[in-house]
Amino acid sequence: MVSDADALKQLRWQEQVADKRKRQQAAIPKEWLIPPVPEGQTNVADVPRSCGLLTDRELEITEVSDVTVLLQKLAAGEWSALEVTTAFSKRAVIAHQLVNCLTEIFIDKALERAAELDAYLKKHGKPMGPLHGLPISLKDQFKVKGLETTMGYAAWIGKYAEEDSVLVKLLLQAGAVLYVRTNVPQTLMWGETHNNVFGRTLNPYNLRLTPGGSSGGEGALIALHGSILGVGTDIGGSIRIPAHFCGVYGFRPSSHRMPSYGVVNSLDGQESVATAFGPLSSSLSGVTTFIRSILAQEPWRYCPSAIPKPWSQDDYSLKAHGEGTRLCFGIMWDEGTVKPHPPVLRALEVTKKALEAAGHSVIEWKSLRHSEYIDVTRSFWLADGSADYNSCLTTGEPLIHSMEPDADPNVIPDFRIPRKPLSAYEIWQLNKERRELRKHLLDRWQATASSTGTGRPIDALICPPAPYAAVPHGQKRSSIYTLIWNTVDYPALIMPVTKVDPKIDVKPVRESFWSAEDEHVHGMYDPEIYKDMPVGIQLVGPTLQEEVVLGVGKVVDTVLSSSGHK
Amino acid sequence: MVSDADALKQLRWQEQVADKRKRQQAAIPKEWLIPPVPEGQTNVADVPRSCGLLTDRELEITEVSDVTVLLQKLAAGEWSALEVTTAFSKRAVIAHQLVNCLTEIFIDKALERAAELDAYLKKHGKPMGPLHGLPISLKDQFKVKGLETTMGYAAWIGKYAEEDSVLVKLLLQAGAVLYVRTNVPQTLMWGETHNNVFGRTLNPYNLRLTPGGSSGGEGALIALHGSILGVGTDIGGSIRIPAHFCGVYGFRPSSHRMPSYGVVNSLDGQESVATAFGPLSSSLSGVTTFIRSILAQEPWRYCPSAIPKPWSQDDYSLKAHGEGTRLCFGIMWDEGTVKPHPPVLRALEVTKKALEAAGHSVIEWKSLRHSEYIDVTRSFWLADGSADYNSCLTTGEPLIHSMEPDADPNVIPDFRIPRKPLSAYEIWQLNKERRELRKHLLDRWQATASSTGTGRPIDALICPPAPYAAVPHGQKRSSIYTLIWNTVDYPALIMPVTKVDPKIDVKPVRESFWSAEDEHVHGMYDPEIYKDMPVGIQLVGPTLQEEVVLGVGKVVDTVLSSSGHK
Repeated sequence: MVSDADALKQLRWQEQVADKRKRQQAAIPKEWLIPPVPEGQTNVADVPRSCGLLTDRELEITEVSDVTVLLQKLAAGEWSALEVTTAFSKRAVIAHQLVNCLTEIFIDKALERAAELDAYLKKHGKPMGPLHGLPISLKDQFKVKGLETTMGYAAWIGKYAEEDSVLVKLLLQAGAVLYVRTNVPQTLMWGETHNNVFGRTLNPYNLRLTPGGSSGGEGALIALHGSILGVGTDIGGSIRIPAHFCGVYGFRPSSHRMPSYGVVNSLDGQESVATAFGPLSSSLSGVTTFIRSILAQEPWRYCPSAIPKPWSQDDYSLKAHGEGTRLCFGIMWDEGTVKPHPPVLRALEVTKKALEAAGHSVIEWKSLRHSEYIDVTRSFWLADGSADYNSCLTTGEPLIHSMEPDADPNVIPDFRIPRKPLSAYEIWQLNKERRELRKHLLDRWQATASSTGTGRPIDALICPPAPYAAVPHGQKRSSIYTLIWNTVDYPALIMPVTKVDPKIDVKPVRESFWSAEDEHVHGMYDPEIYKDMPVGIQLVGPTLQEEVVLGVGKVVDTVLSSSGHK
Repeated sequence: MVSDADALKQLRWQEQVADKRKRQQAAIPKEWLIPPVPEGQTNVADVPRSCGLLTDRELEITEVSDVTVLLQKLAAGEWSALEVTTAFSKRAVIAHQLVNCLTEIFIDKALERAAELDAYLKKHGKPMGPLHGLPISLKDQFKVKGLETTMGYAAWIGKYAEEDSVLVKLLLQAGAVLYVRTNVPQTLMWGETHNNVFGRTLNPYNLRLTPGGSSGGEGALIALHGSILGVGTDIGGSIRIPAHFCGVYGFRPSSHRMPSYGVVNSLDGQESVATAFGPLSSSLSGVTTFIRSILAQEPWRYCPSAIPKPWSQDDYSLKAHGEGTRLCFGIMWDEGTVKPHPPVLRALEVTKKALEAAGHSVIEWKSLRHSEYIDVTRSFWLADGSADYNSCLTTGEPLIHSMEPDADPNVIPDFRIPRKPLSAYEIWQLNKERRELRKHLLDRWQATASSTGTGRPIDALICPPAPYAAVPHGQKRSSIYTLIWNTVDYPALIMPVTKVDPKIDVKPVRESFWSAEDEHVHGMYDPEIYKDMPVGIQLVGPTLQEEVVLGVGKVVDTVLSSSGHK
């Protein structure tokens, strides 16, 4: 029995959502609307190029992948901030029409800002900061003064921010232009992107597949070159899964390296495994430029939990890592319970061969105790017995229990059944468990020094970002491969390496399985479903060694490029 | 009614304590026993010098205050590690007989180690590390392989450590000699030092007063020159209160700057306001040498929560703070609810005048929202409803409810009544509150840039370490003045400045009070009780800026010395 009050409430949130979507639609200039893609076309990656809306110049601008190149042209005044912002805004809006990746669209503000930056450059003869004129997209958690921050909750419609998030403030200080925010899943705690306010985001390489999540709007937008650099958040893989699924670079720094203050979040206040804030970009230079530019603004002067650790050029140039020559990598083929699909293993194999051919070495790293990592981290996430989610669902908006398009909303799958709330004392005990796991890993990492041949521990660890490339909507399983690095707070970089090729990546015959989950994931593989989907690798280093991971990343990226794998 | 089982249990823990004390006594060489001090003598500070047990050479060695001087003589082989260790061991044992400051006494091991170090120096012609031959005392939380770690709990008697704490490992790696561990209060959560295993530690300047706590054994030992450098822990003032009460230097670094792994603790796993690990010393050089030596060992390679932030000589030399000239200090005379006693205010006044005379400036800092700091932090500490304490009191040993010598053990004072346990979700909400308080403080700190005249925010903040000097046993009240810096995780240094002088520090007439606590604390003041007790100041800087606080501390120390206040 639905009471009248409930029915009214139900109506009201749906009306609010309808109004919100109408306002979102109104933010799109009419002349930037494109016709729908033909029924049955699943790959829309080329539509921004082929739809005819972008001028040649706009195409030239938006198809730059290397952020450094774009920044140089902006700083030199070769391209104005206004034309760059216009180009990316148009392309972002095109992308949105294809894959539903945006939440807030605020192009007017962006163009105004871009004009100010152009005037600044003209007047002062120098750029405003290291990100002068660069359009940057933001996941729907970063508050921008005067804009709503809904984070996919109906109850948050109409919550206008009175202040910028610290990270937003620093981006503006560095000269960036903000123009769009991007879609997320309800509660953020999914590896896909769908909510009751903005709906579902699709993968541009195959609309039937998910772009991943929770920073799925960013992944899809950047893959379509509607943004060259975006900011996401990651508590279990939320930057890295979309980066891997959409074929872009994504970096999860350590939790407190980037400023977190003033960002809206799910499970806010849960600090045992804390959210990390980091970039997604079409180039590694975008990732590195972002981290360096933020650190140059001394975020610890604005955010109380940002660690005052300036950018270290010595670390980035791998001074203590043989200057980047003859590195030794660990390689973890799997985490022991779920074997990755053939294209994922091939991406690792390709990387290993390319590194060895370039004079580096690669040693095996065996996954140990990873199931304990998962147990501890899930216990933290679920410690409130859903109190946080419930506090955000005050409008009658239902909690989404599945990312499957046709899921019965009343069926709660096992893994989403709320747990009994934990006590503070139980959290203390879990913190101790996590500490032991971190110590165990650190000791193992340090102990590799005896087998690398360099006198040092491994310089970085290479591992899969997930057991598969982008999966059909609703099919994303647990995020083991990314989550493990959140548990120990290790920085982790996703780099695109290859695409699924059904000719090479044939389905193997397997007669025995490591676990029920392993069997299920094996069953999901059909080369034709995943055809042409991007596949990346994950590169990991110890806590707060962001510069080392990025420096080693550059070595790997260069090696892969020069061996023809980019 | 006491059941037979309970009576037996009761007997058993008391027998274990008696046995433990017997073993402790047996660890003291008989020839190092001294006669008891005459009845009625309250100041024993001179006894080590006057008792005749120490040779002139041993007096010369142990009365060096400056750790750098001692290290130079050790490194040069001018004094052998063996004679230095012998001298400090003898003096520590004398101190223990006077003020009951030790727990584990392991002089045999220490002398063996010292001999090895001497042999090393002879063989290699260079010291083993930056702390070569330096005897270092440890609070009773730092595990040393093969020794018991009781931390004042009867139930922990017989718990022999299988491994060194990481900090112990690094001290040994740096060449230190370990020889004694020092006393703590039961549960650690007191500003005094008394437990059922080792009993009460006394203040060497007045046995009727407390040395403070929880690192009270360290404070008393160092005041008597039974140690030149010791290691304590601080979650609400536990390094700083004893430093202030005993007239030594004490430094609470930020929580994760020093390695914490492998240390036994109270409320273990409570990470919202995390324990900090730091030194107490008879000199500022001792404090600085400790921090620098530990960081030089790269603690993050051994401890998973140690932040990989190397020692910054630029920060220590105040490169970004005008190279230490024309600094601007904030001064906080009180925290707004409890006015400090006259000698504490005089220590601030003396410091202010000396700094101004040396060309620095001092501006007022008003305490804001400090009662919220206290509320949040106490809520974290008490979140388990005493589950942690209870898990350590399995022998029938009673929980101590008061530090008063004659307290009725059955009366539980209001502030020690266990609270209702909190849920994980409630902890999340408290974490958010703490974040807002930290942001509020950071913004205020940064905003001082407009009034310092240096173009920078204040270079450090000067404030009282407590509203009083050392108080009679059982009279230590809440630790507001130290605890506030734990809440926000700011590094804080205690520096001795003066002593209570009843002629100058007369009791003021006050007609109105800021709070009931203010009135109570005012009522505690009688210049004759506090006569000759040391009084320090507290110097505070932003999170993880240890080098800056130590660098500014050096400026203050030099100014105070050259103006005759040391």
